[in-house]
Amino acid sequence: MKQIKIGSIGLGRLGLEHAKNIAGKIADAELYALCDMDEQKLHKAAQELRVEKTCTSFEELIAIKELDAIVIVSPSALHCKHISEALRAGKHVFCEKPLGTSLEECTLAEKAVEAHPDKVFMLGFMRRFDESYMYAKQKIAAGEIGRPVLFRSYSQDPIKCIDGAIAFAPHSGGEFYDMSSHDIDLARWMLESEPESVYAIGGCYAYPEFAKYEDGDNVSCLMKFKNEAMAFLFAGRTAPHGYNVETEIIGTKATLRIASVPQKNLVEILDTHGVRKECSENFQERFSSAYVNEVQEFVRCIIENRKPNVSVYDGTAISIIAGKCTESFKTGKLVTF
Amino acid sequence: MKQIKIGSIGLGRLGLEHAKNIAGKIADAELYALCDMDEQKLHKAAQELRVEKTCTSFEELIAIKELDAIVIVSPSALHCKHISEALRAGKHVFCEKPLGTSLEECTLAEKAVEAHPDKVFMLGFMRRFDESYMYAKQKIAAGEIGRPVLFRSYSQDPIKCIDGAIAFAPHSGGEFYDMSSHDIDLARWMLESEPESVYAIGGCYAYPEFAKYEDGDNVSCLMKFKNEAMAFLFAGRTAPHGYNVETEIIGTKATLRIASVPQKNLVEILDTHGVRKECSENFQERFSSAYVNEVQEFVRCIIENRKPNVSVYDGTAISIIAGKCTESFKTGKLVTF
Amino acid sequence: MKQIKIGSIGLGRLGLEHAKNIAGKIADAELYALCDMDEQKLHKAAQELRVEKTCTSFEELIAIKELDAIVIVSPSALHCKHISEALRAGKHVFCEKPLGTSLEECTLAEKAVEAHPDKVFMLGFMRRFDESYMYAKQKIAAGEIGRPVLFRSYSQDPIKCIDGAIAFAPHSGGEFYDMSSHDIDLARWMLESEPESVYAIGGCYAYPEFAKYEDGDNVSCLMKFKNEAMAFLFAGRTAPHGYNVETEIIGTKATLRIASVPQKNLVEILDTHGVRKECSENFQERFSSAYVNEVQEFVRCIIENRKPNVSVYDGTAISIIAGKCTESFKTGKLVTF
Amino acid sequence: MKQIKIGSIGLGRLGLEHAKNIAGKIADAELYALCDMDEQKLHKAAQELRVEKTCTSFEELIAIKELDAIVIVSPSALHCKHISEALRAGKHVFCEKPLGTSLEECTLAEKAVEAHPDKVFMLGFMRRFDESYMYAKQKIAAGEIGRPVLFRSYSQDPIKCIDGAIAFAPHSGGEFYDMSSHDIDLARWMLESEPESVYAIGGCYAYPEFAKYEDGDNVSCLMKFKNEAMAFLFAGRTAPHGYNVETEIIGTKATLRIASVPQKNLVEILDTHGVRKECSENFQERFSSAYVNEVQEFVRCIIENRKPNVSVYDGTAISIIAGKCTESFKTGKLVTF
Repeated sequence: MKQIKIGSIGLGRLGLEHAKNIAGKIADAELYALCDMDEQKLHKAAQELRVEKTCTSFEELIAIKELDAIVIVSPSALHCKHISEALRAGKHVFCEKPLGTSLEECTLAEKAVEAHPDKVFMLGFMRRFDESYMYAKQKIAAGEIGRPVLFRSYSQDPIKCIDGAIAFAPHSGGEFYDMSSHDIDLARWMLESEPESVYAIGGCYAYPEFAKYEDGDNVSCLMKFKNEAMAFLFAGRTAPHGYNVETEIIGTKATLRIASVPQKNLVEILDTHGVRKECSENFQERFSSAYVNEVQEFVRCIIENRKPNVSVYDGTAISIIAGKCTESFKTGKLVTF
Repeated sequence: MKQIKIGSIGLGRLGLEHAKNIAGKIADAELYALCDMDEQKLHKAAQELRVEKTCTSFEELIAIKELDAIVIVSPSALHCKHISEALRAGKHVFCEKPLGTSLEECTLAEKAVEAHPDKVFMLGFMRRFDESYMYAKQKIAAGEIGRPVLFRSYSQDPIKCIDGAIAFAPHSGGEFYDMSSHDIDLARWMLESEPESVYAIGGCYAYPEFAKYEDGDNVSCLMKFKNEAMAFLFAGRTAPHGYNVETEIIGTKATLRIASVPQKNLVEILDTHGVRKECSENFQERFSSAYVNEVQEFVRCIIENRKPNVSVYDGTAISIIAGKCTESFKTGKLVTF
Repeated sequence: MKQIKIGSIGLGRLGLEHAKNIAGKIADAELYALCDMDEQKLHKAAQELRVEKTCTSFEELIAIKELDAIVIVSPSALHCKHISEALRAGKHVFCEKPLGTSLEECTLAEKAVEAHPDKVFMLGFMRRFDESYMYAKQKIAAGEIGRPVLFRSYSQDPIKCIDGAIAFAPHSGGEFYDMSSHDIDLARWMLESEPESVYAIGGCYAYPEFAKYEDGDNVSCLMKFKNEAMAFLFAGRTAPHGYNVETEIIGTKATLRIASVPQKNLVEILDTHGVRKECSENFQERFSSAYVNEVQEFVRCIIENRKPNVSVYDGTAISIIAGKCTESFKTGKLVTF
Repeated sequence: MKQIKIGSIGLGRLGLEHAKNIAGKIADAELYALCDMDEQKLHKAAQELRVEKTCTSFEELIAIKELDAIVIVSPSALHCKHISEALRAGKHVFCEKPLGTSLEECTLAEKAVEAHPDKVFMLGFMRRFDESYMYAKQKIAAGEIGRPVLFRSYSQDPIKCIDGAIAFAPHSGGEFYDMSSHDIDLARWMLESEPESVYAIGGCYAYPEFAKYEDGDNVSCLMKFKNEAMAFLFAGRTAPHGYNVETEIIGTKATLRIASVPQKNLVEILDTHGVRKECSENFQERFSSAYVNEVQEFVRCIIENRKPNVSVYDGTAISIIAGKCTESFKTGKLVTF
C-alpha cells in the first residue's frame, strides 16, 4: 500500500522526536523531507534518519510534489502562517501546539482549515494520545465516574530545565499559555464543557527573573465550568523530582487519577532514601508513546479519510482560556468568559 | 503521681470516642465524671467505662470539686458558653472544634481564656496530632521543602454518611465551616501565614438538598496567602471510596503528601478488582491515634504547666476564614481579607 | 472495677516498651512492680513510670501478693523457668517470645501451664495483634482468598543494627530462631497447617562474623505444609532501607499483602530522590500498637476468664520448626518433619 | 538504506504480535513474507499487514532469496529444526523461547549456530528488553545494589486463561519449562551466576487436571547459586487479578523491585473497591514494548554485525535448569547440578 509521504519542519527537541518517530515507528508513513534553517542540524538529522530531501525554507518544503503531509514543529509564532500555506499547497497538516500566539492568528488558521475541508488538519495535544489518558477518557465517557465534580491537573517541569525556561520567558506568553494549555485541553476534553470564570494566582517563589514578564515560576487557577464542574490547574517550573504531569477527575461515582506518581518506569528502589520510584525526566520520556500515537492517528486519518478529534477550534478555545487565566493572574481579579 | 481528673460533656460519636480514650488510653488522666442530657446514653457509657459520677447538666458537672479539667464535646452553639463557665469554675478546658458559630461567641471565648491565664485551654484540631501530619510539619519547619508554593488539602466524607450530612445541613454552617475548617487550620499551621484573598465555588452535584441552605455537596476554594503561597481546598460529601483526608504541600525544594492513598491499613489486596487498598471508613478510624494524642497533650500541658499550640485565637481566625470562603461561594465573587 | 496489677521483669528495649505501655496505655491494668538486675536502670524506669515497688530478683517479684500477673521480658534462656515459677506463685503470665531455647525447656513450660489451668498464659507473638495482620487473618478466615497456595514472609532488620546483631550472635540461636520465628508463627496461624519439609539456604553476604556460629546474615527457606501450601521465608540483617516485615499470602481467589511498603507513616516525599516513603526504623516503631494490643488482650483474658489464641504449644511448635530450618541450613540437606 | 527483509513463521497469538511489530514498528525492517499452515489465518494476516509473499511450508519460506532473516514462532518442538534449516539457508534467525524441548534438540541448535558464525542468532527472552528490567540490570551492573543476596521472581497467568493452559498441559513440559523459564533467564542474567541446587514444590490447588501430567497449577522452587545468591521462583496459573510478572533482587546495598504492582497503566481508581489499579491482562499488554525492542535489537545486530546478548547457550542452560526444577518437583527431592 501507498506510504504517506511526510515533510517535517523544525528540528528542535520535539521536532527531532517527531522526525525520528515518523522515520522509524509510524506504520504506513515515510519521512520524505526535512526542513530547518540550521543547515548543520538539518544534515545531521537527514543522515541519521536517512532522508534524502532537505531544504532550509518552508516554501521549498511545501513545493515538494511527492509530499502528502506536513508536520509543523516551527516556532509558535509561525504556526498559523505555515498551516495556511501548507493547506493551500494541498497538503494535510499536523501542527504542534499552540495553534497560534494571538487570536488573530488562530482565526486565520481556522479560515484556512475551513477553506480546505478535504484535508486533514490536526493539532498536537499529545496527552490525549497517552494510553492512560485515553483509558481514563473511556471510563468517563462510559459513565463510570458519574457526574464530574472536580478536575485537577498539574504540569510541572523539572528544575534542571530552569535555565531554558528563563531564556524562553520573553517568548513563552507566560506559564498558562506555555504549560497550562495542555491541562486546559484535558479539562475541556474530559469535562466536555467550557469554563465561565477563572481566578488565577501565583508568583516567583524561587526565580524573580519571571516577574519582569509579569509571569511566575509557579502559578495556579480555579475555574468554574458551564456544567458546574470545578477545575484546578497548577503549573510549576521548579519541581526537584522531575517532570510531573498528573491529573485527577473526581466524579460522583468514582475518582480517576492519572500518573499520581510520575514514575520513570516500573522499578522500585529500597535503599537509604526509603522505598522510592525515580521520576520521569522530561516530556519526551513521559510521553514518548503518545507522540508516536498522535502522528499515527494523523496518518490513519489521512488514509481513512477521517477527521482527528483535536480540531482547529480546540486550538482557538485553548488560547482564549489561557489568555483569561493570564489576565486574572496579572490583574489579581476574577475574570469571566 | 496525681492523676488529672477529667469530666466530659457530650456523648455523641466523637464525645464517646474522647470518653473511651480518657478512660483507657491516656496516661496520667482519669475519666472522673460524665455529662449528657440523654440519661440512657449517659448510664450506658458510665457503666461501660466504669465512671461513678454522672450528671445531666453542665452546671452540675463543673460544680464537681475534684475535677481538674473539662472536655467539651457539646453542640457547637454551646461551646463558647461552656468554655467560659468551665474556666470560671476553675477548670482547665479542652473544647472540640469549632470554637464558636459566630464571631461574637469567639470573642467571648477569647476574653474568658484571657481572664484565666493560669488555666490550660486547648481546641480540638486533631489533625495536628496525627503522626504523619506532625512528621510533615517537622520537615517543613526544618526547611526541607524550601519555600512553600502550593498547599492543597481535601476533606471528603464517605457517601454512606450522606443522610446524616443532609439532616445536619441546617445547622452545619456550610461545608467550609463544617469540613474545610480542618484544612484551614492545617494551611495556617503549615504555611505560617494568613490568607488575603479567596475565590470559592462548588455546587450540588448529586444532592440538591443542600441548595436550600445555600450550601453544596462538593465545594472548593483557591486562596492566596500573605507570604504569596497558594492554597487550594476541596471538601466533598459524596466520596464513594470512603473517608479521604489528604494534604499536599509543594515547596521549592520538595513536595510532601500526607495520606494521598486513604488506606484503611497496610493490607493490599490483589483480586478481580485489581491491586487495591481499602479505604478509611470514617474520621474515628483515620484519626484514632490523633484523638488520643491531642488529649494526652492537653493532660501533659496541665501537668507541665504549658500552653498547647492550638490557641483560642486560632479558633477565631479559622472561623473568620471559613466565613470568607462561604461569602465567596454564596456571592460568586472574589473576597479579600 | 479492679485494675489488674502487673509486675514486669526485664528492662531491655522491649521490656521498657512493655512497661511504658502497661503504665500508660492499657485499660484496666496497673504497672505495680518492676524487676531488673540493673539497679540504675530499674530506678530510672520506676521513677519515670511512677512505680513504687521495685526489686532485683524474680523471687521477690513473684512474692508480691498484690500482683495478679507477671510480664516476662527476661533473657530467653530464663523464660521457661520464670514461667513455671510465676504460675506456681499463682500469677497469670505473659511471656515474650521465644518460649524457650531448647525443646526440654518448652516441655517444662507446657507442663507448668497444664498444671495451672485456671491461669492465663500468653506468648508474645505481637504480629498477630497488629491491625493489618488481624485484618488479613479475618479475610482468610472468611474464605476471601480461597485455598492458600503460597505464604511468603520477610523479616529484615536495618543494617544500622548490625553491631548489636553481631554481638548477640553467640546467643541468638541463629536467624531462623531469632528472626524467622515470627514468620513461622504467622505461617502456622494463617495457613492453619503444619510444615512437613524444609530446605534452607543462605550465607554471610556482607558480615563473615556470623559464619563462626554457623549462621548467616541473610537466610531463607522453602517449606511445604501438610495442606500442600508452600511457604517461603526470608530473614536478613542488612536492610539499608530500615525495618522491613512484609507478608504475602496468595490464594486461589485473592492475594493479600501486608506492609509490602514498610512505610514509616503516611507521608510521601517528592524530591531529588524521586517519589518516596521513608521506612520504619525498628520493631518498636512498626509494631507499637501491636505491643499495646497484645498486652491489652492478655489483661482482657484475665478479666473475662478466657484463654488467648497464642498457646504454650504454639511456642513449642515454632521452636521445633525453627530448629528444622536451622538443621537444613547447616547441613545443606532437605529436612522432613 | 537497505531494509532488512524478514520472513516470519507461525501466526499464533505471539506470532501475530511479532508480525504486526515488524510490519509497523521496527525501524529498518520490512515484513516481506509470512508462513503458516493455516491458509485462512495466513491470508487474513497477509492482507491486514499488506504482505505480498505467503507460503504454507517452512521450506518455501527459507527458499525466498530476498529474505535476510527468519523469525520463528512455530511450535516449540520444531524450533531447533527450523533454526538449523534457516541458518543453512543463509538467513539470520530470531527464535521464540524455548530453544528446544530436549537437550538433544538444544545441542543440535548449538551446532547449527556454531556452523554459521557470520549469522545473527537470537532467542526471544523479551523480558531483557523491557525498559524496567533493562534499567534494573544497569543499576545492578553499576554496583548500586551491592552483592546480590536474594532474587525473587513470579510468573502468574490470569485465571481466565486456565482453559488454554489445561488444553496445552500435555505439551507444555510443565510449569517450570513453560512459565519459569523466563524467571530462570532473568536470574542467570541478573545474578551472573549459575544454580547449584534446587528444591521445588507445588500442587494442584484448584485444577486437578494438571496432576495427570505430573504438573501443578502453582509451583515454586528455591535455588542456591554458585555465587551464594538465593533465588526463589514462583509460577502460577490461577491469578484472579491478571497477568503478574514481578521480580525483586535484594542486595547488600539496595533492593530493586520490578513491577511489584502489575499495573495496566497509570490510571488509579478510587471507588467502592478502595484505591486501586487495574492489572495487565496478558503478556502482550505487559510486554508490548519489549517485543518491539527485542526484534529491533535483532535487526540492529544484523545491520551493525553484532551478536545479541541472548545466545544459543543461554537457551540450553535455561532448559537444563527448568529440567532440574521439574525433577525436584516430581521426586520431592533436593536436586543438585
